[in-house]
Amino acid sequence: MHIRILSIGDELLIGQVVNTNSSWLGEQLTLAGFRVSRMETAGDGLTEIAEALSSNLSECDILIMTGGLGPTSDDRTREALCSYFGCGMRIDPVSDANIRKIFSKRGLPITEVNLRQAEVPEKCEPVYNPIGTSPGMWFEENGKILVAMPGVPFEMKKMFSDIILPRLVARFNPEPFVYRTVLTQGMGESFLSDQLKEWEKGLPEGISLAYLPSPGIVKLRLLTKGDLAEAMQEQIEKLKRVIPELIFGYDDDTLESIIGELLVKKGLTLSTAESCTGGYIAHLITSVPGSSRYYKGSVIAYDNEVKVGELHVNRDAIALHGAVSREVVIQMAEGIRKKFGTDYSIAVSGIAGPDGGTAEKPVGTVWIAVSGPCGTHAMHDNFGDDRGRHIRRTALTALNMLRKELIGIL
Amino acid sequence: MHIRILSIGDELLIGQVVNTNSSWLGEQLTLAGFRVSRMETAGDGLTEIAEALSSNLSECDILIMTGGLGPTSDDRTREALCSYFGCGMRIDPVSDANIRKIFSKRGLPITEVNLRQAEVPEKCEPVYNPIGTSPGMWFEENGKILVAMPGVPFEMKKMFSDIILPRLVARFNPEPFVYRTVLTQGMGESFLSDQLKEWEKGLPEGISLAYLPSPGIVKLRLLTKGDLAEAMQEQIEKLKRVIPELIFGYDDDTLESIIGELLVKKGLTLSTAESCTGGYIAHLITSVPGSSRYYKGSVIAYDNEVKVGELHVNRDAIALHGAVSREVVIQMAEGIRKKFGTDYSIAVSGIAGPDGGTAEKPVGTVWIAVSGPCGTHAMHDNFGDDRGRHIRRTALTALNMLRKELIGIL
Repeated sequence: MHIRILSIGDELLIGQVVNTNSSWLGEQLTLAGFRVSRMETAGDGLTEIAEALSSNLSECDILIMTGGLGPTSDDRTREALCSYFGCGMRIDPVSDANIRKIFSKRGLPITEVNLRQAEVPEKCEPVYNPIGTSPGMWFEENGKILVAMPGVPFEMKKMFSDIILPRLVARFNPEPFVYRTVLTQGMGESFLSDQLKEWEKGLPEGISLAYLPSPGIVKLRLLTKGDLAEAMQEQIEKLKRVIPELIFGYDDDTLESIIGELLVKKGLTLSTAESCTGGYIAHLITSVPGSSRYYKGSVIAYDNEVKVGELHVNRDAIALHGAVSREVVIQMAEGIRKKFGTDYSIAVSGIAGPDGGTAEKPVGTVWIAVSGPCGTHAMHDNFGDDRGRHIRRTALTALNMLRKELIGIL
Repeated sequence: MHIRILSIGDELLIGQVVNTNSSWLGEQLTLAGFRVSRMETAGDGLTEIAEALSSNLSECDILIMTGGLGPTSDDRTREALCSYFGCGMRIDPVSDANIRKIFSKRGLPITEVNLRQAEVPEKCEPVYNPIGTSPGMWFEENGKILVAMPGVPFEMKKMFSDIILPRLVARFNPEPFVYRTVLTQGMGESFLSDQLKEWEKGLPEGISLAYLPSPGIVKLRLLTKGDLAEAMQEQIEKLKRVIPELIFGYDDDTLESIIGELLVKKGLTLSTAESCTGGYIAHLITSVPGSSRYYKGSVIAYDNEVKVGELHVNRDAIALHGAVSREVVIQMAEGIRKKFGTDYSIAVSGIAGPDGGTAEKPVGTVWIAVSGPCGTHAMHDNFGDDRGRHIRRTALTALNMLRKELIGIL
């Protein structure tokens, strides 16, 4: 079974947008047990799409396309599909209703351009798009399948996960890979791989390991076929004994969701006081649906006056130790906890850069505190001079510190 | 002149690695004036590489390849190239010396496997790799050029920028593209394209337009060749007169950076009070280096008690109108502005979902207020039921509202 992925878009060819759709699709198909044999990207022009369509369809069994389905004149995938399959357009009533519903829900007038998105090639079966106005399209001809989906990543992902992939799996019944992702926080990739050398050597043949690093989190993905699933789980149990303090969850878990579950289970509440992370910790916490059950709020004390006025940080402590210090971060954590009357609190203060560093406290320095019924803990680290990564690593480390406190391993 | 980019690597097909090499190469080639007509990714297998080589070379003039040049047995690009060009391997003495130098510099013993990287197909001209052990390869046959480079991004980028691109430019002397991206906020892609229909019709031949939508922001990219650069700028001036309130910046601008510049220039300060966005507005504002010059901080009032206690929102207003209402969001904005003593403030309160909606105020409803020396403005909207997008669209709309207030067009 040859599967190819074809992305349409000049923005991809000129490098304005990185093609993350293809790699996401590649991953989903691979994990389901399919093998992607080629990925291609072609431009928006009608001829380019037509050429890519015919060269790919002649060499594969299933072609998964994304892009070029928007309402504007530079989106020509549907036109190319009509001409390839030799058919005209028709209105898909389901999509037409869907578009009208989306617009009326938002209280917006509907235009001819919007409604044109309900037009699909006559030879396709339209695929419902619950979160957008472009339907997908499923074609079958001469034993081959072609699926066209919108290029907007979140629309494409939902359509593929909910409808397309289950249909492909039901039809072809591939032997899926079994995989488990172990999520770690607190150690960089190279140190971690050093620490896991022995464990890795002991992995049975047929179980593969991949390190997937990102700022602040390293994911370890173990992959195998069904008959080794149990052996893989045994290896994960072994891994837990090697790095118990680093593993915070599995698969789709996030630190913020894990913390939410712990707080809900224990009936506890949380507040935060942020300086260098400027609201990012609160953003992660509140990105979890239902977080209002345990999260009361935050004071973002970007200005030292706010630290003093709102969090009751001692002015002398700032003068003596600096705003980025154990003393100040502890006072911030205790100040917000008292102010909002929560069981736990997190506070951070650091130098995210690019300016503000000194010889003693270079850019990247950060202090993190967690305060709770059993007292206040503080730690410091240096998360480097890239502002964005510093903010993310600080936030994740702070959340993991709270997690460890909540399960009693801090 | 047809240029294609071919990436080799199973890790790309299974989605373990996102193909950033291709988009980087696409951008470099485009800006230099070349047109990339296709991008492809093929697996590590000898047959797969061979097929991709011949299908691509038969349809383009220049093929830029990356990947599969490493020392291990799964790197088979050189083998495939030898077989495609019908030649054997030879030792490249420059690469041989380079490999020995790199290993001796690192104090590492050299193995046969390492030295094998100095072997190149007889028909190629080796391309020096100053920062790695795999040389690049330049082939010319039948009027076509094939360049193979290592897949390691930083090695590839250096080789391409220093050697390959200058050679291509010197040989073909392309006229470089000029492009400009106009950034808009406040209108979805289809409405925008409706509103720009007339303007779009008036675009001179040779200037192309693309819509690049993302939640809350639509980018309009205009692309042309050098001799139309001035005409393109004129079109942008015209566009400004059509949608003055929607355009917030150009190219690499962000709403948060534009607001920062305005506040710094005017010597003004800002605070925020967030409910449904849970810190995301503060995060955007503080992601700008130097934002501490104008941003004082925030109260994230996730809990209604915090709205009352910290922002002095009237308890009766919440009971009467609900926490998501004009009255409450205005009180939040005025409360935080007074509390932190800033010139301006932003406040938001909404229902990000998935729960919490009512018939009267469905999930997605949001109220936004901007308060400043000239009073407090409030607006409401509905940004749909996807929690993540709701948060992002609310934040961007709020920042744009402040921007408009700051330049006096709200």
